[in-house]
Amino acid sequence: MKYGIAYFPNKKIQDEVNSYRKRYDSHYALIPPHLTLKDAFEADDETIKILVPELKKIANETEPFSITINKVSTFAPISNTIYLKVNPSQELQTLYDKLHSGKFSNEAVHPFVPHITLAQDLVDQEYSDVFGSLKMKRFDLADEVDRFQLLYQLDNNSWTVYETFVFGKEFI
Amino acid sequence: MKYGIAYFPNKKIQDEVNSYRKRYDSHYALIPPHLTLKDAFEADDETIKILVPELKKIANETEPFSITINKVSTFAPISNTIYLKVNPSQELQTLYDKLHSGKFSNEAVHPFVPHITLAQDLVDQEYSDVFGSLKMKRFDLADEVDRFQLLYQLDNNSWTVYETFVFGKEFI
Repeated sequence: MKYGIAYFPNKKIQDEVNSYRKRYDSHYALIPPHLTLKDAFEADDETIKILVPELKKIANETEPFSITINKVSTFAPISNTIYLKVNPSQELQTLYDKLHSGKFSNEAVHPFVPHITLAQDLVDQEYSDVFGSLKMKRFDLADEVDRFQLLYQLDNNSWTVYETFVFGKEFI
Repeated sequence: MKYGIAYFPNKKIQDEVNSYRKRYDSHYALIPPHLTLKDAFEADDETIKILVPELKKIANETEPFSITINKVSTFAPISNTIYLKVNPSQELQTLYDKLHSGKFSNEAVHPFVPHITLAQDLVDQEYSDVFGSLKMKRFDLADEVDRFQLLYQLDNNSWTVYETFVFGKEFI
């Protein structure tokens, strides 16, 4: 089964992000707006039984921290993805590093670029129009991260939450 | 904000359910296949802070239990909803009762009919066709319930998981 780890930002951010995703994100119906902390990875039931206590441990070691968002950015020319750029922070990087070391396959394919996707799989012309209009826009969004979620993927490519890990609140 | 409490069945059941929902359920993109344990209710942040420890307590008091599914049923003529009927059990009823008493508004509007929706908002002719073909079908599905999820609703009516409560594993 395919699993992933993500953070769902607060409702205000999700609602704003969805106002763009609805029109521009091919994955709109597959998962709520999210910040990916670990890309999709293959794991069987036995592996998950080992990883869950590890995720609890990581959650218990982590203090709630703030994230801020001020602008959009893009993965072009690698892909036509447009996203809200989450300002990098040491706390976010530390959490990401813990989810890519020890019992977790530490093959982080690319450096961590914290982001919340607004648009993907657009044709070039639409991509240029949307990015052109969003790149000048100033955002002023903030959130307090106090948890993350382990999800698995269904056959239709949508994601279901398996378990939530709340910082400092897990029983091991 | 609107909250609800649900159980997501295992991937096998979800995949089977989605094969119907994709064509017949107007809520297909809004939430994964689920068994509703508490209908949508309004709550502010303060209330949720009180309810979360209560949900942990209920989860800790509950032992994992099995559910089985053998056939579809319908809410007609009240609504054209077609669902997988989850065979009633004392464990399921007890959990439902705990989520509708004490600190929880105990206004259960209708008796608890455990179900996983396959189809809703169909026009009458389509409803008759789909129910006609499904009502003779025998299902042989089973699952082990060991958790439930507290979700909140976004402005686009989709649902995001706020927290998971695993039976016997919550730290209070």
